Amino acid sequence: MADFQSIAQQFVQFYYQTFDNERQNLAGLYRNESMLTFETSSMQGVQPIMEKLLGLAFQKVRHETSTLDAQPSINNSIIVMVTGALLIDEEARPMNYTQTFTLCPDGNGSYFVFNDIFRLILG
Amino acid sequence: MADFQSIAQQFVQFYYQTFDNERQNLAGLYRNESMLTFETSSMQGVQPIMEKLLGLAFQKVRHETSTLDAQPSINNSIIVMVTGALLIDEEARPMNYTQTFTLCPDGNGSYFVFNDIFRLILG
Repeated sequence: MADFQSIAQQFVQFYYQTFDNERQNLAGLYRNESMLTFETSSMQGVQPIMEKLLGLAFQKVRHETSTLDAQPSINNSIIVMVTGALLIDEEARPMNYTQTFTLCPDGNGSYFVFNDIFRLILG
Repeated sequence: MADFQSIAQQFVQFYYQTFDNERQNLAGLYRNESMLTFETSSMQGVQPIMEKLLGLAFQKVRHETSTLDAQPSINNSIIVMVTGALLIDEEARPMNYTQTFTLCPDGNGSYFVFNDIFRLILG
């Protein structure tokens, strides 16, 4: 079995680095069957997902992860749950968030994002 | 396709009601392939999972869910991410938490918990 913990860590590092610096390059991580729930919006497919992510109304963003938990899941997929803080533009107060991914093997030794669920933690 | 959103909502309601009132009955939701990550502890199988859940050092607990997001996932499974507040014993201050489940069809029209990841949100 692949080392799901290392794969999850490498994925999360790459995902947020890409999100924070070259958001358009996240497209390579999704497929047409991929689903994103971002707060109360849900969409499926690379193009709708990228329109959502690129349309988010902030210029500068930084994710700081606090916890990362991974488990092997169905059909060699990996489930990853992250908690962390989101620093947006010049706002002083970071917002807590949680995000869950299902990573699915793509048959070429790599993984794509099958499920992606993001929520801010309020209060 | 089954209505994943209703299944997720019914599951979550049942899960926390059972957790808060008759925690030992959660055993019926897990199988020997089920995995639980609870904060920094990880275990697999009904007995280790139930030992963990029944051994948690609080007498009274109440989960109040804030958000529930679900997506269909691999092989007719359903992924569910919950955020909410945990009220323990007589403590005045609730703690925020997030929990992700993968629900897997058991072949009899019902679902069991394949993946279960729980984290408190600090700060």
